[in-house]
Amino acid sequence: MTLTYFLLFLAASAAAAATGIIFKPGEWYVGLKKPDFTPPNWVFPVAWTYLYVSVAYAAARIAPEAGSQIALALFAVQIALNTLWTPVFFGAHRLWLGLLVLICLWVAVAAMMLAFLQLDMLAGLLVFPYLVWLTLAGALNFRVWRDNPRAGAQT
Amino acid sequence: MTLTYFLLFLAASAAAAATGIIFKPGEWYVGLKKPDFTPPNWVFPVAWTYLYVSVAYAAARIAPEAGSQIALALFAVQIALNTLWTPVFFGAHRLWLGLLVLICLWVAVAAMMLAFLQLDMLAGLLVFPYLVWLTLAGALNFRVWRDNPRAGAQT
Repeated sequence: MTLTYFLLFLAASAAAAATGIIFKPGEWYVGLKKPDFTPPNWVFPVAWTYLYVSVAYAAARIAPEAGSQIALALFAVQIALNTLWTPVFFGAHRLWLGLLVLICLWVAVAAMMLAFLQLDMLAGLLVFPYLVWLTLAGALNFRVWRDNPRAGAQT
Repeated sequence: MTLTYFLLFLAASAAAAATGIIFKPGEWYVGLKKPDFTPPNWVFPVAWTYLYVSVAYAAARIAPEAGSQIALALFAVQIALNTLWTPVFFGAHRLWLGLLVLICLWVAVAAMMLAFLQLDMLAGLLVFPYLVWLTLAGALNFRVWRDNPRAGAQT
């Protein structure tokens, strides 16, 4: 049964991951002024692949536990927000709105991590790198918004 | 506790709904050849608002039940795919890929309806209009793809 859960959470994550293939950074992103801490481009797909798989595994660990429903509801919230961010930022070039989505996503993932921790220590710990990565992504999104006043759709 | 669930599922649905505000149909959609059964534009936000709220309520009904985890995992899959469709179709103009996303979404929602039905009859029935709407949306997406060979990104 845990394999069924893993495949379902992986399917949800694949929908989120697909946005990164459909809405590529492209010339627009290359031309942006970016902060010193911006990771090289190759880091993004590697980091996201690791995070999607490890969080799907973490969710599959806690899903069969009694009382996992709030944790699973939080998984649904974060995967929908995760799917939303890439089209908003790379598709619509809405830098400020992207930052707002990331802040909501960060809160949802932090709540999910706490819910996972209460059910299974390892599952909760597996979510921690996701939260760290979102913190970096949020800082990057903020600086891109602040430092490129004419690059986005201004909202 | 059911209110907490309802608000969480509504938050996930809000992320999906936001795509409809960010990626509006616009001139491109107006210029497409559309089938006779295309609903007038005002129907779409009304139908989606009803569907998002009623499915969030249905999910909140089944969430506290023992053994609801598979149903909740399926909720996560469908809300991620739902969030993906609008940017693919209205953002990237990928008509065929949009149809593929809709087919996956239809399968996920059908499975979710069956899972809900086993837990709570009313919750399952509340998902049925969503499946009917997706069937219509799939037929519309198919016809737009078939009848507008030069309108999309051709994938």
